[in-house]
Amino acid sequence: MQTASPVISSDRVNGTKVYNPKGDKLGSINSLMIDKITGKVRYAVMEFGGFLGIGTDLYPFPWHSLKYDPGLGGYVVSVTKEQLESAPHYEGGSLPDYTDDYGRRVYGHYDIPYI
Amino acid sequence: MQTASPVISSDRVNGTKVYNPKGDKLGSINSLMIDKITGKVRYAVMEFGGFLGIGTDLYPFPWHSLKYDPGLGGYVVSVTKEQLESAPHYEGGSLPDYTDDYGRRVYGHYDIPYI
Repeated sequence: MQTASPVISSDRVNGTKVYNPKGDKLGSINSLMIDKITGKVRYAVMEFGGFLGIGTDLYPFPWHSLKYDPGLGGYVVSVTKEQLESAPHYEGGSLPDYTDDYGRRVYGHYDIPYI
Repeated sequence: MQTASPVISSDRVNGTKVYNPKGDKLGSINSLMIDKITGKVRYAVMEFGGFLGIGTDLYPFPWHSLKYDPGLGGYVVSVTKEQLESAPHYEGGSLPDYTDDYGRRVYGHYDIPYI
């Protein structure tokens, strides 16, 4: 999944599994949200729950909160069960506006300065 | 395709058509190449040619060379036929290393400073 290349394809990020630091699977990357002006990835949107796309919940994470773990073959995010339960999320199909207010709420929830 | 939101989903970028300034369709976005460290989209990879995935050629473009045109519902890139014919490209399935040398060649070809 990770190579010596300085870049990674969006194809390879989407679908990659996400774990907590204990190695429990939390979900997988559904998509990336990219700043239109700067071209910077602001959020990796994790999906979990659901079955065949029904009832899937989407959780935006600050891109820099995800660390790739070659051993697990996925991303690790330092988040507790409680933090995740109260985290900003939305149902698949209902995209929020991703305003600055929303962004600050997402980043703040994971204690990462909003950029 | 484009909304008032400051961000756009990778899902919506991939598959979006790419045109030249005359409005001729050149191809469509295949994927985005993201800088692993900074999280910045460095390249939008355009695919064209091919049929059912056979013989598709992939052309990396500097992200900032693509401008979204709401009228066309796609991206416009200022590129001549001659420029495209001699542009860096590769066959689908054979990913280059995307080293800095390669990046400078891609950016240089479209007269955009390498970042």
